Amino acid sequence: MKRLKATISYDGTLFSGYQVQPGERTVQLEVEQVLMKMHKGDKISVTASGRTDARVHATGQVIHFDTPLVIPPDRYQKALNVQLPRDIRVLNVEEVSDDFHARFSVTGKRYRYIWSTELIQSPFRRHYAVETNGVKPNVEEMNRAAQFIVGTYDFSSFCAANTSVVDKVRTVHSLDFEWHGEELHMIIEGKGFLYNMVRIIAGTLWDVGIGKREASSLKSIIDAKDRSKSGKTAPAHGLYLEKVFY
Amino acid sequence: MKRLKATISYDGTLFSGYQVQPGERTVQLEVEQVLMKMHKGDKISVTASGRTDARVHATGQVIHFDTPLVIPPDRYQKALNVQLPRDIRVLNVEEVSDDFHARFSVTGKRYRYIWSTELIQSPFRRHYAVETNGVKPNVEEMNRAAQFIVGTYDFSSFCAANTSVVDKVRTVHSLDFEWHGEELHMIIEGKGFLYNMVRIIAGTLWDVGIGKREASSLKSIIDAKDRSKSGKTAPAHGLYLEKVFY
Repeated sequence: MKRLKATISYDGTLFSGYQVQPGERTVQLEVEQVLMKMHKGDKISVTASGRTDARVHATGQVIHFDTPLVIPPDRYQKALNVQLPRDIRVLNVEEVSDDFHARFSVTGKRYRYIWSTELIQSPFRRHYAVETNGVKPNVEEMNRAAQFIVGTYDFSSFCAANTSVVDKVRTVHSLDFEWHGEELHMIIEGKGFLYNMVRIIAGTLWDVGIGKREASSLKSIIDAKDRSKSGKTAPAHGLYLEKVFY
Repeated sequence: MKRLKATISYDGTLFSGYQVQPGERTVQLEVEQVLMKMHKGDKISVTASGRTDARVHATGQVIHFDTPLVIPPDRYQKALNVQLPRDIRVLNVEEVSDDFHARFSVTGKRYRYIWSTELIQSPFRRHYAVETNGVKPNVEEMNRAAQFIVGTYDFSSFCAANTSVVDKVRTVHSLDFEWHGEELHMIIEGKGFLYNMVRIIAGTLWDVGIGKREASSLKSIIDAKDRSKSGKTAPAHGLYLEKVFY
């Protein structure tokens, strides 16, 4: 038995998220179905760094699974890519030690959030960036607001209200904005994130960018530890899980 | 009654092509349905510069239609975009004289064909570029071959066999290749194109790029006026109608 770590990319558009749910098309289900075929009907459980929601994309999700097959990792990668649907690609497979765990060994994650600010969003971007109908935000103000997010805080104000997690203290290492043509990217790195945290941060900083909130208000929003003080959860299809650190 | 010219972009993935076909989702059908709503049930016929096949994209298709409504062109554009599905966008609407005709007034067209040559094609590009499984063609040879295509010739060898068009003489003004990262773009401009002509040229020049044909063989392929002498019709989803000249 050996443990394999795989880095995968997926277009979240046609998935009901990463995690298996009865009757739904999910990334985990597709991967486990292919692995079952490769293992002649034996169920091979896959563990990811964390789940992603419906329509959220990944360019660097990480999974692990244990296999009795003696196939070199690169052949494993090819076999998976041949059988997986084209909206999931395996970018890399490597053998890891038994104590590697895709979720518990995570030391950090990087997410990207994309808005397209053209007056008319390209039809080719409709599933891959959130349209702003031509609104261009004030990124200087968004950057000012971002400074209140970087650090170690109780992020209760930036966590979906219906979560069961008790400890909501998390550390955000960096939060940057970049223009790529008329698309605005928010890149956020941290040790870990609460449920919907990146999308609520995106929604709240967007409010700052369009003048609906003051940059300095971020401090009181964090202090309040109250989800109702922050902005809307930004739409799922603008979000990308870009890199998982171990 | 006034005549409006509209430039539209569409993601061809979920369309059975441009032209109305019974029971199929087509670009023309979607546009005409919205126009019918705007005209309180009156049928407004739309004419395009030409049809595009299923899964073929457009970044600059041109259509025209006649309307009795007295709405400024830019308001027309907004009204259409609000009601059209997100995979069709109206980029521009302008009033034109009665003798403008989206098809008969065409003086030229530009198409783009895209291959993605990464070893593993990004899942986000699967509908928008043709994957080559890591094969990188010799573009110098493709450019040499392209010189035989530029000019005025009987392009029977580059026309779908089942066409009813009699005169197959066409003029290609330019044919260029550009790398965009690991994606190879073929950009072709001409006065007019036969059915499948761009895709057969793409398929034949690809053969040259991978050493399956000599660049100089293009001359004898054209001279033969025989579809069986040229290469395969390259897949539809790599093709974009980029610009129509009037």
